[in-house]
Amino acid sequence: MPCKLPSCSWRKPQQYRVNRSSMRWLKLTVTYDGGGYAGWQVQPQESTVQGVFEAAWRAITQETVRVTVAGRTDAGVHALGQVVGVCTTNLLSNNELRRGLNAKLPDDVAVLAIDDAPHQFHATHDAISKLYRYQIHNSRIPTVFDRYVTWHVPQPLDAETMHRAGQAFVGRHDFSSFETSGSPRPDPVRTLFRLDVTRGSAALCEQITIEVEGDGFLYNMMRSIVGTLVPIGQGSRPPEWATAVLAARDRRHAGQTAPPHGLFLVRVRY
Amino acid sequence: MPCKLPSCSWRKPQQYRVNRSSMRWLKLTVTYDGGGYAGWQVQPQESTVQGVFEAAWRAITQETVRVTVAGRTDAGVHALGQVVGVCTTNLLSNNELRRGLNAKLPDDVAVLAIDDAPHQFHATHDAISKLYRYQIHNSRIPTVFDRYVTWHVPQPLDAETMHRAGQAFVGRHDFSSFETSGSPRPDPVRTLFRLDVTRGSAALCEQITIEVEGDGFLYNMMRSIVGTLVPIGQGSRPPEWATAVLAARDRRHAGQTAPPHGLFLVRVRY
Repeated sequence: MPCKLPSCSWRKPQQYRVNRSSMRWLKLTVTYDGGGYAGWQVQPQESTVQGVFEAAWRAITQETVRVTVAGRTDAGVHALGQVVGVCTTNLLSNNELRRGLNAKLPDDVAVLAIDDAPHQFHATHDAISKLYRYQIHNSRIPTVFDRYVTWHVPQPLDAETMHRAGQAFVGRHDFSSFETSGSPRPDPVRTLFRLDVTRGSAALCEQITIEVEGDGFLYNMMRSIVGTLVPIGQGSRPPEWATAVLAARDRRHAGQTAPPHGLFLVRVRY
Repeated sequence: MPCKLPSCSWRKPQQYRVNRSSMRWLKLTVTYDGGGYAGWQVQPQESTVQGVFEAAWRAITQETVRVTVAGRTDAGVHALGQVVGVCTTNLLSNNELRRGLNAKLPDDVAVLAIDDAPHQFHATHDAISKLYRYQIHNSRIPTVFDRYVTWHVPQPLDAETMHRAGQAFVGRHDFSSFETSGSPRPDPVRTLFRLDVTRGSAALCEQITIEVEGDGFLYNMMRSIVGTLVPIGQGSRPPEWATAVLAARDRRHAGQTAPPHGLFLVRVRY
């Protein structure tokens, strides 16, 4: 249970004695613009979201923590609802922690919510599913305000055909064809629960959104799926190509890896 | 009439002879992210939207033009539908011009449309009304993805009260109280056709939008109106304050000038 002391203030946490036995687990929902970072995970000599998050945590709580995370997003990839797990002994309330972290974090990272989590909560291992969204700006005219959060594809795309072709990926499959070579994981089998390709209506008719929810994603899998659906949407590949690429279990058969700046980790279920 | 030659290519305009008598007027609808510019108007030693626009025009047509513009937006102010008037003798079609300009312009400026305009079209003088929009992010939690296009006001705002108070500005008034001192125009009387303050619904409930349409705007007038409505929305000023500020005809009575990055020139009517 978080302590809610009326006198608590995140400005001077050092004035409160820490009870080492009061260890608790927290689940933080975090959003970030990944454009300025070499991805989530701490790397030497690089600015990473994990790095700025742990620095802000240290500044507010005087604790050095190593956090767990739902999805280790790659360089340039964004998050609307990344989930971070922290084990802490500090006595600040969740609201005080959130305000303190947001005051310390740079303006391209924000903590949306902090909730109490079960004992030994692990943001990676406890996740049941993750929802990723990929945004394409499909117009001859480039987009100014969304240029850092959409992939600009000027050739007309048929979203319905992309959607139908993409259904080949739904279910339990060996996704070796969609894993960037050089980083094989022991088990390339993942289950996708849904894949939806939709075109916006009215003023958003130039935006194509690809949402994929699954129990896990191989390295660059989401961006390789998008890069395979786009030539199908352009008509340069037939819809059946999606099935053939999946069956090949070989990265060389898939389309290009779509650029990172159109990709968002939207939500994680536990 | 724009010439639509099948062989025309914007890549090599110099191969076509220009007929000096074929002068024509064009109306360009332009969008830009003003964050990287010292405003619209050309200034020595500064990067301005007009500067990059005229440079792109020169690169495509080999013409040096001085353009007319609907609203000389200030440093940091954005445009969704700025209107630019050009008198030209070049023989490219409007589509070829648009594609050529967009290929040359930096990625924070784009030409949305090019239409034929009446003889001697002047984007400033011929405008009947301009619609400005101001975006406020009203939440304790800062916004990551809209941080460059909204003003973050963490204190709760009552949008309905702001809307009601703002109706005092609708109609024909002397707006001297909302003109930044040091830049008086001969006639401070302008007519506002409407002023609407709305809070978004559902996922957009943290966004407050202030739209004002009028026949003209004094220097910083829109931002001063927003800066006057915000303390009313916070409850630190009564709604009647809007009427009192307007009647004072003195800039010192108004609220602060809201920051530029929440402001958009949305649409111009002719």
